[in-house]
Order: sequence, then structure tokens, then C-alpha cells
Amino acid sequence: MLNIRSAQCRDRDAIWTLFHDVVSDGTTYAYPSDIEKAEGLRLWMDDPRACYVAEREGAIVGTYYLKDNQPGRGAHVCNAGYMVRADARGQGIGQALCEHSLKAARRLGYEAMQYNLVVATNEAAVHLWKKMGFDIVGTLPEVFDHAEKGLVDAHVMYRRL
Amino acid sequence: MLNIRSAQCRDRDAIWTLFHDVVSDGTTYAYPSDIEKAEGLRLWMDDPRACYVAEREGAIVGTYYLKDNQPGRGAHVCNAGYMVRADARGQGIGQALCEHSLKAARRLGYEAMQYNLVVATNEAAVHLWKKMGFDIVGTLPEVFDHAEKGLVDAHVMYRRL
Repeated sequence: MLNIRSAQCRDRDAIWTLFHDVVSDGTTYAYPSDIEKAEGLRLWMDDPRACYVAEREGAIVGTYYLKDNQPGRGAHVCNAGYMVRADARGQGIGQALCEHSLKAARRLGYEAMQYNLVVATNEAAVHLWKKMGFDIVGTLPEVFDHAEKGLVDAHVMYRRL
Repeated sequence: MLNIRSAQCRDRDAIWTLFHDVVSDGTTYAYPSDIEKAEGLRLWMDDPRACYVAEREGAIVGTYYLKDNQPGRGAHVCNAGYMVRADARGQGIGQALCEHSLKAARRLGYEAMQYNLVVATNEAAVHLWKKMGFDIVGTLPEVFDHAEKGLVDAHVMYRRL
């Protein structure tokens, strides 16, 4: 049974472990591989407008943040980022987080959601976001330095809420 | 005679006046219209990797910043923003700033430049960036809340360096 709830202070260590594992992998997020804990948690958990965790049997298996994609005149569009623990992938947790985030974003009054850097080689993510109603608005050539594949393309994806 | 040089502390008031005028106009940049001086200068002048001004007869008539568009694995692509004083537009200053920024970006080792939010109704800018070698990679529907026209589209534009 998966429970998605607001992140609490006591989740910081678990979020950092998950964040650090995903970022160290170097295949999906642009954060520097050697990012430190305080900075990582600031960007993922503290600065965004909201941060949630997915809990299963007392363990954090996923997390997402929600924030304005642009300030001021662009602040009616939000941005979100999602991470699922490596050993919990392929079980619908990413989809559950995305569905939760779409509802949370509507509740916060956002009119659209935009992803700025969906790594094109991350086919599972691209497939899931399409299934969740996102369109590929454009593809930026070689803007992501993939840890294994070198420079690869990334998509800008968008959907109305 | 136009002189483009690194912004100095003594330029802060002039940059703020220019920044504030452009932002208050509400037709080209997403910064909140009521942004305060310290925050505006932090975003435009202090946080970016470089900030330049265009000086003519002792007055600041334009400015631009240059920064990483993404951290870490996306930090080989830069982002830039440009502003020209209202009474100095249509005189090639925007183009001079852009040409200067392309050289400065190459010198800093960037491999590409990306604009994330080129307001589609700002036809002079779209035309100039195309002339400067940028492609429209995609168009985001109604992501900019234009002060006069309401929600309008914005382009993501990109060129290699």
C-alpha cells in the first residue's frame, strides 16, 4: 500500500539517500554528481512550493517536488521533478506520483505543468509523461551530459491542467 | 560609439533603472512587476556567471547576463538575457549585445546557448534571435502573462556555439 504525503523534516535523510542515488547515477537529472546534502535538499525539498514522498511499509520509495516554472508573469505554469528508488521502479510509483502532482498543482491554482529537461534516452519517463497527457513541445540537441552515453538530447514537455 | 564592458558596482543604479523599466512594462520578461531592487540585481547581475553593460556617451543603454542554463550535466549550455533602454531601441544595440554574448560564451567554454522564454509577441526579439542563428525548438502555449495581451505563447530558442 502506497501512501503519498507531504515531506516532513524527519524525511530529510531518506530523501537525501534517494536523491543522492538518482543524481550519482548521472542518467536522468542535471544536478552535479557531487552535489552536497544541504544544497540537494534545498533544491529538492526546501525551495520548491511543495515536496511530497511516497511511503510503502514505512520506507520512502519515491518523492516529487512542485514549484513555479518561472517567476511573476510565468508563475501560472509549474514545474515538477520525480524520483523513485531504484529497487521500486516498474511498479507504478512514478505514475502515482505524477497523478498526485497533477491534482496538487490544480489545487495550488496552476494552469499548466512543464518539464524543462526530460532526457531523451530515459524512455520509460518519456513514455510515462506521454501517457500522463504531456506533449513533447521541442527537443534540445545534446543538452544533457549522460554519464554513460555522453551528450544526449532532452525534451521540453508540457500539459495543461 | 557603443562600448560593451563588464558591469561594475558603480553601474548598479543604472542597471536597476533599466531593469525596472523593462520589467514594469510587463511585455517581455517574467520577473514579477513589483520585484525589489536587491532581488532584481541579484538575479540579473550577481547570481549569473557574467553581466555586461553597453555604454554610450557615458550612459548605460543596454545590459545582458550570461549563466549556466542548467547545473551539472546541463552546464555546458548557457542562458542569456538582454535589455535595451526604451529610447535606444532600433539602433542595433540588441544585436551588438547578442554578438558580444556569443563570443563571451564561447570564451567561457559553453557549447550552446538557450533562451527558455522568448515571448512570441515580441516579434523584434524573435526576428533578431533568428538572424543571430537561433532556432525555435518549440513553442509553449500561453505560458506568459502579457501585461496588455493576457496569456501569450513563448518560444524555446537554441543555437550551438
